Amino acid sequence: MTEEQVRAWDRHHVFHSWSAQDEIAPLPIASARGSTFTDYSGKTYLDFSSQLVYTNLGHQHPRLVSALQRQAEKLATIAPGFANDARAELAHDIAEIAPEGMDYVFFTNGGADANEYAIRLAQQVTGRAKVLSAYRSYHGATGTMIGVSGDPRRWGAERGGHTGAESRHFFGPYLYRSAFWSQTPEEETQRALQHLENLIVLEGPETIAAIILESVVGTNGILVPPPGYLPGVRELCDRYGICYIADEVMAGFGRTGQWFGFENFGVAPDLITFAKGVNSGYVPLGGVVMRSEFRDFFAHRPFPGGLTYSGHPLACAVGVESMRVFREEGVLEHVRDLEERVMRPGLAECAKRHEGIGEFRGLGLFWAVELVRDRDTREPLVPFCATGEEKKPMAELAAACHARGLWPVAVDNRLHLTPPLTISEEELTRGLDILDDALSACGL
Amino acid sequence: MTEEQVRAWDRHHVFHSWSAQDEIAPLPIASARGSTFTDYSGKTYLDFSSQLVYTNLGHQHPRLVSALQRQAEKLATIAPGFANDARAELAHDIAEIAPEGMDYVFFTNGGADANEYAIRLAQQVTGRAKVLSAYRSYHGATGTMIGVSGDPRRWGAERGGHTGAESRHFFGPYLYRSAFWSQTPEEETQRALQHLENLIVLEGPETIAAIILESVVGTNGILVPPPGYLPGVRELCDRYGICYIADEVMAGFGRTGQWFGFENFGVAPDLITFAKGVNSGYVPLGGVVMRSEFRDFFAHRPFPGGLTYSGHPLACAVGVESMRVFREEGVLEHVRDLEERVMRPGLAECAKRHEGIGEFRGLGLFWAVELVRDRDTREPLVPFCATGEEKKPMAELAAACHARGLWPVAVDNRLHLTPPLTISEEELTRGLDILDDALSACGL
Ligand SMILES: Cc1ncc(COP(=O)(O)O)c(C=O)c1O
Ligand SMILES: Cc1ncc(COP(=O)(O)O)c(C=O)c1O
Repeated sequence: MTEEQVRAWDRHHVFHSWSAQDEIAPLPIASARGSTFTDYSGKTYLDFSSQLVYTNLGHQHPRLVSALQRQAEKLATIAPGFANDARAELAHDIAEIAPEGMDYVFFTNGGADANEYAIRLAQQVTGRAKVLSAYRSYHGATGTMIGVSGDPRRWGAERGGHTGAESRHFFGPYLYRSAFWSQTPEEETQRALQHLENLIVLEGPETIAAIILESVVGTNGILVPPPGYLPGVRELCDRYGICYIADEVMAGFGRTGQWFGFENFGVAPDLITFAKGVNSGYVPLGGVVMRSEFRDFFAHRPFPGGLTYSGHPLACAVGVESMRVFREEGVLEHVRDLEERVMRPGLAECAKRHEGIGEFRGLGLFWAVELVRDRDTREPLVPFCATGEEKKPMAELAAACHARGLWPVAVDNRLHLTPPLTISEEELTRGLDILDDALSACGL
Repeated sequence: MTEEQVRAWDRHHVFHSWSAQDEIAPLPIASARGSTFTDYSGKTYLDFSSQLVYTNLGHQHPRLVSALQRQAEKLATIAPGFANDARAELAHDIAEIAPEGMDYVFFTNGGADANEYAIRLAQQVTGRAKVLSAYRSYHGATGTMIGVSGDPRRWGAERGGHTGAESRHFFGPYLYRSAFWSQTPEEETQRALQHLENLIVLEGPETIAAIILESVVGTNGILVPPPGYLPGVRELCDRYGICYIADEVMAGFGRTGQWFGFENFGVAPDLITFAKGVNSGYVPLGGVVMRSEFRDFFAHRPFPGGLTYSGHPLACAVGVESMRVFREEGVLEHVRDLEERVMRPGLAECAKRHEGIGEFRGLGLFWAVELVRDRDTREPLVPFCATGEEKKPMAELAAACHARGLWPVAVDNRLHLTPPLTISEEELTRGLDILDDALSACGL
């Protein structure tokens, strides 16, 4: 197909996520390899988005492609009611990296349904209905999950009749724009926990099935929780008999330099949800890892949930190979090394040179640069939920990066920098140089 | 991996859909080809289930496997925000077989999320919240969909706090066990429509976003609607400004001998949901086909919904090749031919020889045999929602089939016969002979 053909059929037949359909012009991509992708004109971009933060091992990793092809040759699919080697092996491998006592995996197709079923499990086991989640969070867009997401994208769905019946939202820690008038990380942690406990007490602890939290908040700002916050949440959950669900859909599988984001904070949840990085999205896959008590609750009563492609062999085979690559290519070590030697110092350097950078923050290869009009007032470069003209300064910054061959993602007043975990030092350095140049070009 | 290893890791690490985990013993499958699959002892089964009614082109179809491998080599994945040739082509090909004016496709990962987003679209466009669906229906198991499903599997979720807030259920036509005291198909149609209209009027038409209906009810009984029913539903939807969603997840892509099940009844819905047969489930894929008015509603306002793997290139590439195979191998014609010459007469013959068969019914290669204790009273062989010992007669019948190398699916008091659409005449005949023999062995 020619570029024109792709554009035409895309325009006339594909309905795109989250978009005003007449206001987008999706770029046709011809190929991709490692940390780059290439359009039909032959222009190559450094992929600092990892698409939607999921191609953790990069594009077209030869070992993942060949695992995929081998499994296709062997057995592309079998129903979830049978036992299958690829599925069993991936479940085993995931249980091995999960905290002690989290031995069982329920597989889904992606992140939203992973969260749907984690909530189902929590509701079943506790006999309670409500789910607490953070403002500034994203947990998926199916009916239940769009309500649970604290992301403003839920407003549109709510206008159409979704009530988010089970959802209650709380404020999480975000020191740069504290909801608690805090000055220090210690204060932010302590106040955020006090706020959460106030909310639990007034909602009624015995009505709350679960608290769901991104271990590092992704789309809503790459917010790294301050020391003590996640352990405090764990304690509140224990005190009130509430299930702690760690949403690791974006943070998991190496993004933060550990298998799971929560490992950076010395806690273990009751349920872990994952997707994206588990197999770099070469085949749709997600799932829930659960403490064995959850599994045992359903030893003699049927679990009320399921899906046709639960534990899809093709998806699982790529997951198995992906975990081997992580180990054999030392990916976690590579991430931590690049974080320390390149990313953190590179952004510090960049912030020195550009007044427009209000804050940069992150962990591993999971970073945000927050752009402001004024460092003192911290006024964002574009307002929260900006539309149309208001968005222009950020759209221009993104365009300046794209023009120079760098593809970060712009969200609100932030650029998110989330390259593949396999990116080379040279590519990462080059990307940061382009960013520096683009910021200058935009006068930031 | 050995069979023992697969069993052990499956048992200790995989959490299975819908099951009491200690009461199942999933059979490890070693390989599959065409209409058969084979366990580790080398025993081969005729697959009369098509797994969960999704391997419409059979197992390991060489053209699908090779399309999958080629796309893996070319570009396994790219985010939904870009344009992609495989995605654009499949959307084009689906629009081509959809009714006039249904030009746009929103892709998802499976059936449940296809229905989630169809409902989202209907709610957005109508500004109404409620969804009507049939008792004896299955539409998926995410939070919203388990509530919409009329299937008793929703009870378990509801006990855990799900309220199915938007859902209202009505009775659909099912002449063999009529909810309307009907004697003839004409009466069943007329009364089922009157019942549905009564419900619409008393719920309040201006509160109802959509009616969702399987064109042929699948898991809940393979219930073929009587003549005039679907056109009547279409009319009610038009009269009251309600969106008509046809759930074609199971009935679609050739199962009934037409591309879509509703084509058998001369109607066109406003939204079509699909999954399963679109690519025989070699890669998870689902979606919604919509009338262009729905797309245009979002020309200048963002659609509030999306998912990471919307329009996954690998999944779409297999879909494109699958539609070519349907055409080039004359699959729809083959289905209609086998239905007329083998399935329908074979089951008629079987029913003559076995008093235990109360009714057999179906369309294309989508059939159910309903087993009864008594043809006159129609008392089911096992009660609705039977558990434990009560289920035994059906479990024995299924086991008798399995022992003889036939794999149908037992649901309630029914055997569902849904072989791959590419099954040969010889295999289909052999399967029906085994069924006949198993019924005799069970004294039915
Ligand atoms: C933290 C988090 N949870 C859940 C999801 C939803 O995943 P999916 O898009 O696969 O449904 C996302 C997607 O970006 C995510 O970032
Ligand atoms: C008619 C129908 N709709 C929806 C679904 C749900 O599809 P999935 O299991 O892919 O979520 C099914 C699954 O069997 C189905 O038969």
